[in-house]
Amino acid sequence: MPLPAHSVQGEGQFLIDGSFGIALEGYTDSRLLSGKLRFLDVLSKETGIPLRGEAQSKQANFTIKTAGPSRPVQQVVEDESYRLEIMATHVELTAANPLGVLHGLQTFLQLVRVTPQGFSVPVAAIDDQPRFPWRGLMIDAGRHFMPVPVIERNLDGMEAVKLNVFHWHLSDDQGFRVESKRFPLLQEKGSGGLYYTQKQIGDVVQYARDRGIRVVPEFDMPCHTSSWMVGYPRLASGAGPYQPTSRWGVLDPAMDPTRESTYQFIDRFIGEMTTLFPDAYFHIGGDECDGKEWDANPRIQAFMHAHGMKDDAALQSYFTARVQKLVAGHHKIMEGWDEVLQPDTPREVVIQSWRGQASLAVAARQGNRALLSTGYYIDLNQSAAQHYLVDPLGGDSASLTAEQKARVLGGEATMWSEYVTEENIDSRIWPRTAAIAERLWSPQEVTDVASMYRRLAIVSQKLEYYGPQHLSSTLLMLQRMSGDSDPESLKVLAAVVQPPFGYMRGGLRNYQSFTPLNRLADAVPPESETARKFSDLAKLIAAGKASPQQWQEARDWLVLWRDNDAKLQPLLARSELTAELIPVSQTLSQVAAIGLQALDDLQNHRAADAATREKNLQLLKAASKPQAVVLDMIAPSVGLLVKAAGAQ
Amino acid sequence: MPLPAHSVQGEGQFLIDGSFGIALEGYTDSRLLSGKLRFLDVLSKETGIPLRGEAQSKQANFTIKTAGPSRPVQQVVEDESYRLEIMATHVELTAANPLGVLHGLQTFLQLVRVTPQGFSVPVAAIDDQPRFPWRGLMIDAGRHFMPVPVIERNLDGMEAVKLNVFHWHLSDDQGFRVESKRFPLLQEKGSGGLYYTQKQIGDVVQYARDRGIRVVPEFDMPCHTSSWMVGYPRLASGAGPYQPTSRWGVLDPAMDPTRESTYQFIDRFIGEMTTLFPDAYFHIGGDECDGKEWDANPRIQAFMHAHGMKDDAALQSYFTARVQKLVAGHHKIMEGWDEVLQPDTPREVVIQSWRGQASLAVAARQGNRALLSTGYYIDLNQSAAQHYLVDPLGGDSASLTAEQKARVLGGEATMWSEYVTEENIDSRIWPRTAAIAERLWSPQEVTDVASMYRRLAIVSQKLEYYGPQHLSSTLLMLQRMSGDSDPESLKVLAAVVQPPFGYMRGGLRNYQSFTPLNRLADAVPPESETARKFSDLAKLIAAGKASPQQWQEARDWLVLWRDNDAKLQPLLARSELTAELIPVSQTLSQVAAIGLQALDDLQNHRAADAATREKNLQLLKAASKPQAVVLDMIAPSVGLLVKAAGAQ
Repeated sequence: MPLPAHSVQGEGQFLIDGSFGIALEGYTDSRLLSGKLRFLDVLSKETGIPLRGEAQSKQANFTIKTAGPSRPVQQVVEDESYRLEIMATHVELTAANPLGVLHGLQTFLQLVRVTPQGFSVPVAAIDDQPRFPWRGLMIDAGRHFMPVPVIERNLDGMEAVKLNVFHWHLSDDQGFRVESKRFPLLQEKGSGGLYYTQKQIGDVVQYARDRGIRVVPEFDMPCHTSSWMVGYPRLASGAGPYQPTSRWGVLDPAMDPTRESTYQFIDRFIGEMTTLFPDAYFHIGGDECDGKEWDANPRIQAFMHAHGMKDDAALQSYFTARVQKLVAGHHKIMEGWDEVLQPDTPREVVIQSWRGQASLAVAARQGNRALLSTGYYIDLNQSAAQHYLVDPLGGDSASLTAEQKARVLGGEATMWSEYVTEENIDSRIWPRTAAIAERLWSPQEVTDVASMYRRLAIVSQKLEYYGPQHLSSTLLMLQRMSGDSDPESLKVLAAVVQPPFGYMRGGLRNYQSFTPLNRLADAVPPESETARKFSDLAKLIAAGKASPQQWQEARDWLVLWRDNDAKLQPLLARSELTAELIPVSQTLSQVAAIGLQALDDLQNHRAADAATREKNLQLLKAASKPQAVVLDMIAPSVGLLVKAAGAQ
Repeated sequence: MPLPAHSVQGEGQFLIDGSFGIALEGYTDSRLLSGKLRFLDVLSKETGIPLRGEAQSKQANFTIKTAGPSRPVQQVVEDESYRLEIMATHVELTAANPLGVLHGLQTFLQLVRVTPQGFSVPVAAIDDQPRFPWRGLMIDAGRHFMPVPVIERNLDGMEAVKLNVFHWHLSDDQGFRVESKRFPLLQEKGSGGLYYTQKQIGDVVQYARDRGIRVVPEFDMPCHTSSWMVGYPRLASGAGPYQPTSRWGVLDPAMDPTRESTYQFIDRFIGEMTTLFPDAYFHIGGDECDGKEWDANPRIQAFMHAHGMKDDAALQSYFTARVQKLVAGHHKIMEGWDEVLQPDTPREVVIQSWRGQASLAVAARQGNRALLSTGYYIDLNQSAAQHYLVDPLGGDSASLTAEQKARVLGGEATMWSEYVTEENIDSRIWPRTAAIAERLWSPQEVTDVASMYRRLAIVSQKLEYYGPQHLSSTLLMLQRMSGDSDPESLKVLAAVVQPPFGYMRGGLRNYQSFTPLNRLADAVPPESETARKFSDLAKLIAAGKASPQQWQEARDWLVLWRDNDAKLQPLLARSELTAELIPVSQTLSQVAAIGLQALDDLQNHRAADAATREKNLQLLKAASKPQAVVLDMIAPSVGLLVKAAGAQ
């Protein structure tokens, strides 16, 4: 995963044992050498066979042939193709440059499995290249700071699924996260002490390059800038003074687009940042301006009047155009969220569409290149399937001409961090981002959701060999919540609940940036695998298509959930973090009991009386609403069973 | 854990929430500041409450008062005491120097637990100091190289249990692990590419110092030196040429003690290494010389004859005395394994006793200071209880005078690495080393094994917040072995088997340094917690002292084990790594069935006929022997039940 563009499976398998050895032929460089060592490390982890030591007698049964170098700074359009030929006794990986080699190595690692003969890879010939050249993951380090090890292990995960752009959201109202030497008050006053040093930035850029990943920095402006104004109130449109904020949402502070000093500041700032970030692109954000500070400032109103600007959008457009020139002056290509798109936006500006797929098509028609993030908002707790079926060239973009379609560079998963910390961010990013990565790499017609989930489960497991801690973090958090080293009954509950969808969570409690995220909604993955599997069973049963084994499986699950409450209750009361789950556990038990009754009714071809059915459906409806900030994901499926039983 | 020297528990608790804040009073330095940040990090992990950011309004409800500095290079005898007073609204930690502060912070972290009111620490007053000044963990990076992150996370674990000496075994027959600039062929020819750079050594020394831990390097000589001789055959007593070896055991290669060039080399080498390792002590190994190369070399024999040396021990003694002068010349105190002890060994040499507790007493009587490692060999898969009950001042040392006892500095757990890799080393070190740490820190009369195991379970869980991966690694290895992301039935089997005790394993298969350690014996912890608990139950039942609940618990376990085989068998055949477990799983099922029959017999006050009993005991005896390099730890307890049933 992602599925290769072309592959032909053969007979037999290539065995991996201690004599495994790699030969590099043709062009070579330090990135290929370190890529080889990293490959051997992961392969050792996948197999438990030591492959790094050189003392062992090695034969080269894995040959890498690289035709030439890739660019000193990775470009958007470089050849990323490779050919991987796996024969029974020998493997050959061929690519035009190191980028293709890195991708081919990942494909090989994904194919490793344990068999009765040992660890092996099936014989196959794979010719592969990406569908889109820009396949990204954005991490928001502004709202919750993410230490360097978090970034690094997610870059490891990105490499595994062939993502090639790390979009680093580095400033927001809650924090400014980069050390500036020209404007040191940015981090000194605006970060609460949590920021990346310039040395660390350089390390991350190198770490990413080693993995075939570009790093695109984002400094969001003119809004989402409260943290800048703590140290530099002159940038602001309001009177100040400004404090770092711990609130979420669209806040009022905005840079003053009318003062020349604002542009002088930005110019010098971009000048400093472009020395840290070698990528050709520079993201200036540009989203979510509420305009309140502009409206309240008579001087700004006078400026707008004098320049014939009829609204705040026109003022922002003026700001964006000025900043675009500054970015271009530093030899960078500007990128921005779709708010920056105006009819007169220079053609070289890249638009990142987040408010709907329509803006992507508008940009492409207008001649701008564009990226899709609408539908890839992994902070909204949608399913992998939902993300998977969003296509950058679907929806409004399907009707683009070939030339316009070529302007759609790809897409980016966006990990906004209101409700994630360094502890649980991995479980929000992985494994679902692998499904998005497949959408952006594999041919458009690869859309089989069942196949995607089958392969996603394997990739999810393998990712733990790379670095992401998406699976292990959940258990640690449940242990901590309960004070119990093996909280079996809490795990049973945790497996069938999810955090609320979309932007619902902010309405349920008063969350701020320092609110501990250490409860069940934070510990469980955004998509319950158990609930998904039970939903599949319920649909089969309701449709009269389930096998006896599937009936039994559904019954076993429901019995487990019905009886779990009695075991779990004593545990819940012992901890402040779990006490709120007392009704959640009770509800699950009730839901399961209703489900068991519905199964009985279906099996005996008998319907409950209408009053009982209505009562049960009401209860299930109530159970489907958030309780203690989690959703019971079983209730909707039980509703299906109750309706099916009633329809007999 | 370790239990404090003195503590008085009060009423109430100190609550930890987002307003938690620390004030440093009195002396302060960078180590205290970084210790504070590290403390906040672990506390954040323990609670999930963000405590690092400075933007939050903080009150200082935790005051640290430090009287003065500790030594620039940590000494063996420094004041490590502290006083920790936990009141309902305020905590005060007082110490003479930063070492005591670091220890007191760890005590606080261990007391954190979740309650109905939230995370809290019980009100208490603790006055604490260590019983012994030298509390160590040795890691053998010679046989299997251990990358820096492995060392660092184990230093984190050491800090948590107040160990203060990291003994780094850096060279052995299989590998030379430090970069030498004076003698670069040491690492270039002798490490297979797996060694620490001088920069990394410096980083580890600093990392350890930050945690109140001394780093004592060991370069084992004159034997265990094959890896030196690959690059520098002139050091050897044999003709050479030498190759890196992958075999385990006592090998023949030995330095030539008769050539002046040997001492010139060692002198220059020690000179270089002492610039890397600031500690006052320098360990020269000195163990396990078989003397074969000396015996076979006529020149060496002639030298011995000319100098009136009657045996190889005398020759080694001569070598040791020469090296001791070189070590002293570089202003270091020599340390060695107990083989280096001779009647004329200079009094300043520190003896590390590994061949029995007797040599410890001999050394102390003779006027040498000494350390105990006999009984703390954590590579031998003994139980925590066995290690726990070994006292440096027990056995032969109990009869020492007070003055002689004062020469016993403490002890060290030794993690030899024939059968560990970077992947499973944590699960060999932890949690058992915490029991040894308690032996070396807490008062001698603290010997309650049941209390130790209760607290060890809590510490084991907490250690995962620090860095050691002793719990998570087992699951990953079982997943890999089986190719199954949730190998439930394999976990059931894994929970009741152990790797073989002592030196038995080497006799069961041909293990070499490149043999993959990826099977069940490598994945499971060295001490089965489940088997220990079942053994306790079986003893109670056999003694007629079990409650009805305990009877039921034993029965539930046995039913689980009896029925597990049917579920597990289909999984086992699918992987080369698990196929060998087919009979192991069958045996467990048989053992459990016999156990259930014995329980029935006991409950019904009826004895099986003698022939059946004899047959069952034979089967249990066979089941207690290693199969697929693991031991069934249930069989001996079932044997108890069968015997009890027969004795009715």
